[in-house]
Amino acid sequence: MKLLTLRTADGTKAVRQDGDTLTEIPGFSDVGALLKDPNWETTAKAANGATHALDGADLAAVVPSPGKIICVGHNYRNHIKEMGREVPEHPTLFAKYAESLIGPNDDLALPQESDTVDWEAELAVVIGKAGRRIPEAEAADHIAGYSVLNDVSMRDYQFRTIQWLQGKTWEKSTPFGPALVTKDEFTAGPLMTSAVDGEVQQSTPTSDLVFTPEFLVSYISTIITLNPGDVIATGTPGGVGHAQDPKRYLQEGQVLVTTIEGLGQLTNRVVKEA
Amino acid sequence: MKLLTLRTADGTKAVRQDGDTLTEIPGFSDVGALLKDPNWETTAKAANGATHALDGADLAAVVPSPGKIICVGHNYRNHIKEMGREVPEHPTLFAKYAESLIGPNDDLALPQESDTVDWEAELAVVIGKAGRRIPEAEAADHIAGYSVLNDVSMRDYQFRTIQWLQGKTWEKSTPFGPALVTKDEFTAGPLMTSAVDGEVQQSTPTSDLVFTPEFLVSYISTIITLNPGDVIATGTPGGVGHAQDPKRYLQEGQVLVTTIEGLGQLTNRVVKEA
Repeated sequence: MKLLTLRTADGTKAVRQDGDTLTEIPGFSDVGALLKDPNWETTAKAANGATHALDGADLAAVVPSPGKIICVGHNYRNHIKEMGREVPEHPTLFAKYAESLIGPNDDLALPQESDTVDWEAELAVVIGKAGRRIPEAEAADHIAGYSVLNDVSMRDYQFRTIQWLQGKTWEKSTPFGPALVTKDEFTAGPLMTSAVDGEVQQSTPTSDLVFTPEFLVSYISTIITLNPGDVIATGTPGGVGHAQDPKRYLQEGQVLVTTIEGLGQLTNRVVKEA
Repeated sequence: MKLLTLRTADGTKAVRQDGDTLTEIPGFSDVGALLKDPNWETTAKAANGATHALDGADLAAVVPSPGKIICVGHNYRNHIKEMGREVPEHPTLFAKYAESLIGPNDDLALPQESDTVDWEAELAVVIGKAGRRIPEAEAADHIAGYSVLNDVSMRDYQFRTIQWLQGKTWEKSTPFGPALVTKDEFTAGPLMTSAVDGEVQQSTPTSDLVFTPEFLVSYISTIITLNPGDVIATGTPGGVGHAQDPKRYLQEGQVLVTTIEGLGQLTNRVVKEA
């Protein structure tokens, strides 16, 4: 099942995608709100609300306001190598705030303050059931499904200090969607790519993760309760612009396309903030 | 004016403190919800709801679920020195999630997984009005007031990787309150202390901040919109246990007291999780 958050004249709506049709799931303003219903899966399957064409739909970030966005660094061997680091014993975790998120086809805000804006294609895990200290063997029960996220990073701010947050959470810079694909329809493995103006920059199978989604759910939930709608961005593979020679960054007017086979595609035009 | 979040049999309530009396501000479940009302200050002043005695009141974290908790590292010269670092050019920012917060008199959860749990007394800034790219000269307009927060840190997890988040956001480990003291009644300057079982560990005036509250509001809002109820934890001074010789950490049964003169006191018993 594919779940999306649609913008309408009446505000956002959680919808189910069947082929080219989006069907509203009445009572839920977005996929995050839906996931807070313990029966979300049954409710979503049975929903029979107003319909919309997928073609031309104005989509929001699939979960527009997650309670937590937990990002993972150093989680693909080829990116670890290009950044000059060792394969880690523990996952590196950092945060991003919800105000950073944009929809799958929204403009990506290039701020006035940074000219080192870089791409980081990532597999996103969305939590569907709350838990603390979840054993790895039970972690799949807590995963609602998967989506695509680009952890766009302002490298100058990221490396101003030893903590990355300020380069990772710029307003309206993190595309997320298009759909939550439920876990029965997706397993980490398929190819993930990012491309700038059609030129492929990153291309790595999502099976190359050092720490799997299930391990990450278990590890993070040792520290803090994972709640429905929380998002884990599982890290990016090699091919970021900052590690290329010469270094490359996003420029005004470029189009960043991020794809995971089986999950969908984000297409975001880079627009300089006024 | 002092605003608090009171736990009652009917759920939490935003209340105003006048002397020993707490008066409910009808319609608002907590101080965070209140601050989302553009007229929060007038509303709170005029409120005339049910009253409760301050003595014995069961207080929640003053803002129980901030949209963002932004923490600042390396912001007191004496702590920078004890951690062996240079006075920085830019503030170091990292995050904490709302599930970490506890009330001013709640038990502080000592997890099974860490035996290096340390204190970090901090002045907290609470945002009262949304803004992006707020000039430093206008930052005070966006500050609702101030409170006390202890950024309790699990040092082993903090230093497992180069990003601190996983040592900073353990469940139910961050005392925050007791009150939001509106900015007309407080200016950074008074003494901040932390004590363990009555023995003072940290004692530094809040005027020793490298980056002021107004600077931080301006800096962070360059990156992302600050919204009402967002919290900035402005960093801790010298005297943390990890920097002592020998190192000292919180032990089961100890009582951690965190005080800022003019803002109030947090008194939290350290209780090992089952």
